[in-house]
Amino acid sequence: MKISIFGQGNMGKAIGENFSQAGNEVEYIKRDTTVDSLGEIVVLAVPYASVEDIITRYADELSGKIVVDITNPVNFATFDELVVSSDSSVAAEIAEKLPDSNVLKAFNTNFAATLTSQKVGGKEKTTVLVAGDNKEAKEKFAAALEKSGLVVTDAGSLKRARELEATGFLQMTLAAREKLTWAGGFGVIK
Amino acid sequence: MKISIFGQGNMGKAIGENFSQAGNEVEYIKRDTTVDSLGEIVVLAVPYASVEDIITRYADELSGKIVVDITNPVNFATFDELVVSSDSSVAAEIAEKLPDSNVLKAFNTNFAATLTSQKVGGKEKTTVLVAGDNKEAKEKFAAALEKSGLVVTDAGSLKRARELEATGFLQMTLAAREKLTWAGGFGVIK
Repeated sequence: MKISIFGQGNMGKAIGENFSQAGNEVEYIKRDTTVDSLGEIVVLAVPYASVEDIITRYADELSGKIVVDITNPVNFATFDELVVSSDSSVAAEIAEKLPDSNVLKAFNTNFAATLTSQKVGGKEKTTVLVAGDNKEAKEKFAAALEKSGLVVTDAGSLKRARELEATGFLQMTLAAREKLTWAGGFGVIK
Repeated sequence: MKISIFGQGNMGKAIGENFSQAGNEVEYIKRDTTVDSLGEIVVLAVPYASVEDIITRYADELSGKIVVDITNPVNFATFDELVVSSDSSVAAEIAEKLPDSNVLKAFNTNFAATLTSQKVGGKEKTTVLVAGDNKEAKEKFAAALEKSGLVVTDAGSLKRARELEATGFLQMTLAAREKLTWAGGFGVIK
């Protein structure tokens, strides 16, 4: 499957490596590039502040695609709150603006190092929690990562993106306050 | 230290056992009981719906105490949202009503079975995340549990109770949807 990734930071690279390892064709899209067509899964591995520009610019190309939002919309000035409305989520904002795409929330509860090593704290397998309203889209996403070594767990409807963003933020505050390392975090243990 | 616990459900019992094991004197307070004095730490191990009644009835006795809120205010009719305002938390509501108490949020990200076994999924040590605005109160809470076998981690100011409640809720939805067992959950891995 072709996977298009916006963003080549730590997260974008770590996500791309996992999709490659699972046998997918991964392409990175640079800002301002004209693209003929995007992959079936498009990952927005960019900061929250860059999301709106991308989904506006590529709205047509994103139609019919699985669009994966990975952001944690932290107020980095205070590190004390999220910048989206408390009764919404970035994923919900994107879904509203891209009614013809299948928006998923995923990877935001994973630190980049745990995607690369595929372990949380060197111990537990890294689990990608994915939320979305379209069951088939979630299944395609999980299938594309099946051979990666990551565990993919369905976290429910897109409404759960709010809790995923809160959980991702909580985990970041713990790491920033050195209660966790950036190679650790919340392991999903069955 | 004397620990007073309201509620003798699974959570109340599991929490009481841990405080006992760490060498504290634990007393359970029954509803409608007249109490002379409560312990230095008071745990409200009751459902969200019962909190207001208790903090109204025992407002005087709770003054000056460390009051521990463990609730996950889930809408159990829909299991799809929390019933507190999305920009607040139960802990913040309690703190507003008990200005002379030191309110902490704790235990809400721990399933009862993981407090009893002190392991998440039989593997990782169970970590109690505790949020609150009073550093000394958090330190006393941690000290009281030091010999219990649980790990206590400071999760920041009481404002973080919002994210703790979202995280607790997310974890409950995963267990309810059988993506986790009630003996598992989010292990806090350093």
